[in-house]
Amino acid sequence: MTIPELTAQLLAGSRSALARTLSRVENSPEAADEALRTLGNQIGHAVRIGFTGPPGAGKSSLVTAYTKFLRKQGKQVAILAVDPTSPFSGGALLGDRVRMNAIGLDEGVFVRSLATRGDLGGLSQAAGDMADVLDAAGFDYILFETVGVGQSELEVVQYADSVVVVLVPESGDAIQGMKAGLMEAADVFCVNKADREGADRFTGDLQGAMMLKHWDEWKPPVVNTVATREQGVPELSEQIEAHLAHLRKTGEFESRRHAHARRRIQRMLEKKLLAKFWTEEKARVMDEALARGESPYSVLGKLQIS
Amino acid sequence: MTIPELTAQLLAGSRSALARTLSRVENSPEAADEALRTLGNQIGHAVRIGFTGPPGAGKSSLVTAYTKFLRKQGKQVAILAVDPTSPFSGGALLGDRVRMNAIGLDEGVFVRSLATRGDLGGLSQAAGDMADVLDAAGFDYILFETVGVGQSELEVVQYADSVVVVLVPESGDAIQGMKAGLMEAADVFCVNKADREGADRFTGDLQGAMMLKHWDEWKPPVVNTVATREQGVPELSEQIEAHLAHLRKTGEFESRRHAHARRRIQRMLEKKLLAKFWTEEKARVMDEALARGESPYSVLGKLQIS
Repeated sequence: MTIPELTAQLLAGSRSALARTLSRVENSPEAADEALRTLGNQIGHAVRIGFTGPPGAGKSSLVTAYTKFLRKQGKQVAILAVDPTSPFSGGALLGDRVRMNAIGLDEGVFVRSLATRGDLGGLSQAAGDMADVLDAAGFDYILFETVGVGQSELEVVQYADSVVVVLVPESGDAIQGMKAGLMEAADVFCVNKADREGADRFTGDLQGAMMLKHWDEWKPPVVNTVATREQGVPELSEQIEAHLAHLRKTGEFESRRHAHARRRIQRMLEKKLLAKFWTEEKARVMDEALARGESPYSVLGKLQIS
Repeated sequence: MTIPELTAQLLAGSRSALARTLSRVENSPEAADEALRTLGNQIGHAVRIGFTGPPGAGKSSLVTAYTKFLRKQGKQVAILAVDPTSPFSGGALLGDRVRMNAIGLDEGVFVRSLATRGDLGGLSQAAGDMADVLDAAGFDYILFETVGVGQSELEVVQYADSVVVVLVPESGDAIQGMKAGLMEAADVFCVNKADREGADRFTGDLQGAMMLKHWDEWKPPVVNTVATREQGVPELSEQIEAHLAHLRKTGEFESRRHAHARRRIQRMLEKKLLAKFWTEEKARVMDEALARGESPYSVLGKLQIS
């Protein structure tokens, strides 16, 4: 089926056309280009929320509980689960099965996982493109969920309007040496599994660590949850909405989205410019120079970027 | 001081000129360009070994112990400690102090940490450039040490000739969901803190997990160490040398280095091509299109990559 046929069907509500479009978009920038041009006018309605944090923080359970909460308010929810790793065990699969029992049969929920490998940036580009398709398909909330806190995962959630960083009371080490990127990416902190021992101390430590940082107008609130018992989820939702309201009030909502678009354009440009640059002749010049033991800088000089 | 003056002094053995050259190279691609062209003929003698693994695996102690071992064999050793995070605590500093007590006063050792932030790829480019400078300065071994296993850290160690992945008996979860990139990056596995309970079981699990993967000619050996007591370090060194010998025998040593050089050239090209592409006019076209709500793909079309 052609992309225009698929997009027409997904706009009419076909879930199978949506799934097929997403696969095409994930695997081919050309298909993404065609699909997003076709869907252009339909994109921009959905809110995008990112969930990231160390493995074992219960992000999958939390996203599931949050999804159920949004569903009760009549919202259509799409989940993009981003996994730049390929685990040996069936861990990811098991998590999916638990989730499927909870929300899998709900027509108002769409779950898609994404494991594109390849170059840095490829994953976030695919995630951004797929979120646009889901947006056009009419979902109100698009949730990015990552398995860990690697650089490519941070890049994915940074395309979200609001980012929830999920931690657990055992994440003490994670705070001590907390990746600056993680701290800076947070719009809302969620301390999950907050019924465990040490939760209060951990929340205190987190707030202490936050005091060491300068925040602009919005200081991320800290919400305690027990996702498996759906505790604290309304409070989490409230803080997410408060952040979105803050963004809209200050005009930052639009400026963030423009910044995201600019970053996506830069990434796409890099690829296009490189593809255009390389000719057989230039590849030959490079290989010969390298075989002579020349340095990368010397080779770069020979390639004559005119 | 000019770059040619600095490089002349570092070739003559000046450590302060070396330190100043490294700072210039780290902070400016133009300085790196000039320095590496000047040093071109002196680069290529050193062996580059990467050490990566999850936080807490004892990489810093292991690298220190391995350095002491190499020193006893009369080798000059440079350590590039790569930290793409900026911890709140003084953890990294403390580690450095321990290391300094062990090897800090040895003239045959040079330690430099690298924490360049900024774009993906910037860190690995700086690491590659700085390793070239250290190579020219006459070090026999250049050790890349990372704080974690993020994508940018993996990219750094992949510029090494041989990569040691450091784990501990408690890394069970790390194997279960082991990042594919980490498994694939390993030339030698090191189970550190091997005097801890569960070490044998862990080593067995690791070897089991390795059986699930197809290896080409070289199957990474697993070495047990207790870095703080310098146990197992000669065996680790032996396996690293065996891997290097294997690379040389099969011709893979050169082909890896060429692949590294090609990757570095690609990264540098991306930046140069983008810088050349963007004009004020194009930036204006982009901003106006985004303000009208156009999609990244639509904007890309307007930018006319001719």
